[in-house]
Amino acid sequence: MQELEEYQSILEEKISKLDFPKSPKNLYDPLRYFLTLGGKRTRPTLTMLGCSLFGEPGIKAINAALAVELFHNFTLIHDDIMDEAPLRRAKQTVHEKWNTNVGILSGDVLFVEAYEHLSRHEVDVLPSLLNIFSRTAKEVCEGQQLDMDFESLEEVSIEAYIEMIRLKTSVLLGAALEMGATVAKASEDGKKAIYDFGVNIGLAFQMQDDLLDLYADPDKFGKQVGGDILANKKTYLLLKAKELASADQLNALNHAMNNIQGDERIEKVKLIFDDIGVKSHAEEVKSEYYNKALKNMDAIDVSEENKAPLLELAKFLMGRDH
Amino acid sequence: MQELEEYQSILEEKISKLDFPKSPKNLYDPLRYFLTLGGKRTRPTLTMLGCSLFGEPGIKAINAALAVELFHNFTLIHDDIMDEAPLRRAKQTVHEKWNTNVGILSGDVLFVEAYEHLSRHEVDVLPSLLNIFSRTAKEVCEGQQLDMDFESLEEVSIEAYIEMIRLKTSVLLGAALEMGATVAKASEDGKKAIYDFGVNIGLAFQMQDDLLDLYADPDKFGKQVGGDILANKKTYLLLKAKELASADQLNALNHAMNNIQGDERIEKVKLIFDDIGVKSHAEEVKSEYYNKALKNMDAIDVSEENKAPLLELAKFLMGRDH
Repeated sequence: MQELEEYQSILEEKISKLDFPKSPKNLYDPLRYFLTLGGKRTRPTLTMLGCSLFGEPGIKAINAALAVELFHNFTLIHDDIMDEAPLRRAKQTVHEKWNTNVGILSGDVLFVEAYEHLSRHEVDVLPSLLNIFSRTAKEVCEGQQLDMDFESLEEVSIEAYIEMIRLKTSVLLGAALEMGATVAKASEDGKKAIYDFGVNIGLAFQMQDDLLDLYADPDKFGKQVGGDILANKKTYLLLKAKELASADQLNALNHAMNNIQGDERIEKVKLIFDDIGVKSHAEEVKSEYYNKALKNMDAIDVSEENKAPLLELAKFLMGRDH
Repeated sequence: MQELEEYQSILEEKISKLDFPKSPKNLYDPLRYFLTLGGKRTRPTLTMLGCSLFGEPGIKAINAALAVELFHNFTLIHDDIMDEAPLRRAKQTVHEKWNTNVGILSGDVLFVEAYEHLSRHEVDVLPSLLNIFSRTAKEVCEGQQLDMDFESLEEVSIEAYIEMIRLKTSVLLGAALEMGATVAKASEDGKKAIYDFGVNIGLAFQMQDDLLDLYADPDKFGKQVGGDILANKKTYLLLKAKELASADQLNALNHAMNNIQGDERIEKVKLIFDDIGVKSHAEEVKSEYYNKALKNMDAIDVSEENKAPLLELAKFLMGRDH
């Protein structure tokens, strides 16, 4: 994974050197703080890999990559406000460390920075990049709205859930790759295939996320195992369990979710999930998306050597255990 | 003002026909609602007039004009959250009618729409337009942050206040005009002069705003006369009064602002302002900025006929009594 690590270290360096104004402090200090909380820089790495896949050095796509990372962080700052999240990567969120108004406004200015970086690309690719970026930004907002809407809905179909996670998280992975491919002047077919690859990896990744939340090794998992169950979150596991449950199982599930607290709730729900067999369903869906992604990659007409780093990254993302 | 009215009616038509998706309703309904609350569409009109000033039909700048108007509305939605404002143009604000999360997220997606419209311009002017737009968007965020910072500061200098209103409100008027001029491929000197014209008109306009808040005819003014004094807002009038007050006047002013409520506070403060003579100071500063703007316009090498609509609009904005 030499190329991968090289790109990640370039990105870390560039992000640490982003030159925000000194003043107003309450506007720009939160950005300096939030952007150095860490993270794997997966999305901008995808942009650089999407470029090198089609035969151009990944560094050519650096400004699109930074735009993707800045946009992603902007959505995190605003999502944390909306979700009332106190922590992000085990550190205080912006609205907790400062206040909600600072979170709103520093998020806004970060979004401008994202477009500002994207706009540095040459005019031969600029309109396409802007097009992908704005389309995706709107979809991500739509996904977040659907996620919030679902909280107050009694019933959410699996189909609606998949569409929500597609918009909220997966399209950005696809777009990150497509933007890299665009900088490399890939063919329309190539751009479409690498976008689909990213979306399918994103969906598989989200399934893995839902699975890990309940089935991760507590020693390796940074968060509370079973946190989604405690938060009454509509995950694939819960929705599929409700879909497949017998009348008795459904009663037991609803009872546990509504009337039992803490670790006991997690244990009870897990037993019902095991009875119904939702874990293997989720694993199957995850594999389906992963296999679709591999087929998307198969269809791309470049050397196996060029494909290797992206396939390795995808494999790594699927195999992660925390 | 035929050209002015024609542009305003084109803009009203275009804004009413903006095609937002039906779903998610909680994301896009607020935009449909907020964008039809009315307003004079001054900023996008400036963009069209900035284009026609330099000899091209204003309609050529329609997408930049819409970007400016969408951006302006995005800032209003987020500012209303930060200022906890219940009403905008005598109607409920978005976060009041829906909730804060809807306000944050529908604001975000509106910002994307703004960039999306701007991106429709041809590549021969697109990088310049993006450059002006992103620079200005950052400045507007900085102005809003300074405005919020000032609330908790004991002392704010007149200089700092002017810089705050320049960023928060005036640069957008300058940028709106500059973007129109850019579409018309004006010279660098021409673009600089029309930008400065807009910023100076904006500063004069804000002085007028501060003056009207206290000295408007209550029958014509849509809001409470003296509202800024009730809200303890640091306006030019208050800051200048503090600067020029004798020790006794300063005591009386602080006493009134801190210990007297309602109409009585407004009356007391107005009497002290009259003693000190701050009204004429504010009028003088307003005239200075207006005259600077006229000089900026003088320096532009186009026919008087081309200049007429913008000069009329500027005169109208200065003379407004509500």
